[in-house]
Amino acid sequence: MEALKQKIREEGTVLSEQVLKVDAFLNHQIDPALMQQIGHEFARRFAGLGISKIVTIEASGIAPAIMAGLELGVPVIFARKYQSLTLKDDLYTAKVFSFTKQTESTIAISAKHLTSADHVLLIDDFLANGHAAQALIDLIRQAGASIAGVGVVIEKSFQAGRAELDAQGYRVESLARIHSLEGGQVSFLD
Amino acid sequence: MEALKQKIREEGTVLSEQVLKVDAFLNHQIDPALMQQIGHEFARRFAGLGISKIVTIEASGIAPAIMAGLELGVPVIFARKYQSLTLKDDLYTAKVFSFTKQTESTIAISAKHLTSADHVLLIDDFLANGHAAQALIDLIRQAGASIAGVGVVIEKSFQAGRAELDAQGYRVESLARIHSLEGGQVSFLD
Repeated sequence: MEALKQKIREEGTVLSEQVLKVDAFLNHQIDPALMQQIGHEFARRFAGLGISKIVTIEASGIAPAIMAGLELGVPVIFARKYQSLTLKDDLYTAKVFSFTKQTESTIAISAKHLTSADHVLLIDDFLANGHAAQALIDLIRQAGASIAGVGVVIEKSFQAGRAELDAQGYRVESLARIHSLEGGQVSFLD
Repeated sequence: MEALKQKIREEGTVLSEQVLKVDAFLNHQIDPALMQQIGHEFARRFAGLGISKIVTIEASGIAPAIMAGLELGVPVIFARKYQSLTLKDDLYTAKVFSFTKQTESTIAISAKHLTSADHVLLIDDFLANGHAAQALIDLIRQAGASIAGVGVVIEKSFQAGRAELDAQGYRVESLARIHSLEGGQVSFLD
């Protein structure tokens, strides 16, 4: 998606060979018009698949997910993160290890909002090592729902998450695929 | 806003005389079409005021804020919550006490995204005791920015937050004002 790549080139900051900072338009300050274009693009790529619900994770997944939900005409659920969580019967839970923060948290979705009748599009802002995506897949499977695909705003293709999802047979659509951040430069895959 | 009140009547759950659960359409599962209507209504009520930026707080403020930002054509910043935060020079920070969770957290906004040139619309999902709103106002004032008003999706008018903002002279626009949750019933102010 060219508008997104352009935005990354202009406003993204390469902090290291692993870390791209996009807090100017995606995960702290958000550009609503770009989010609308992103939602439109996700809806186009996942059209006609009978998606009934979008699942994402707080907080940075919400903006792109809500715009995709608006275009596809389906509700969005965001998994909540907890530092500690007293287990409740009415929640699906999974653990996520954050590589950036080096901490483990629990994410949860209320059981009443996701059922075996749902066909789910998973959306997130970043795909790196894939820990968040795998935890979301875990939650969706606990509900007995099926997975239509995974929509990612920015994929760091040089980390393990994408290859793992491919190997598991999921359809992954990433709107910007980053081949490398070496030398402080963003180099895209295509 | 009638569509919102209707949704609260149909899908809200009164958990106690203080707590209204709206996780079916606002703060866990989100109804994107309703958020679009909400964004439209905020934009209508705050039109022509020269708003340059919307400020909200993660996670449930993001969906209504992004839709208002889309309509008004301005960026949205969401303050991040931290359990603990090592103070950094480039952040404005404020403490928020959560009445629901009985915990204190720190919220922060990156200094580079908010300046004294900004005229800010503050948006949040709920206004109850007003702790989150007051902390956001604190952050915005640290940046030297001015405040155009406060947009709230659901106001619990029987709690102190609204009266305090009124007394401070802020323009507050709440799309649903709840007079009482007594007897398990939602009673609106108008």
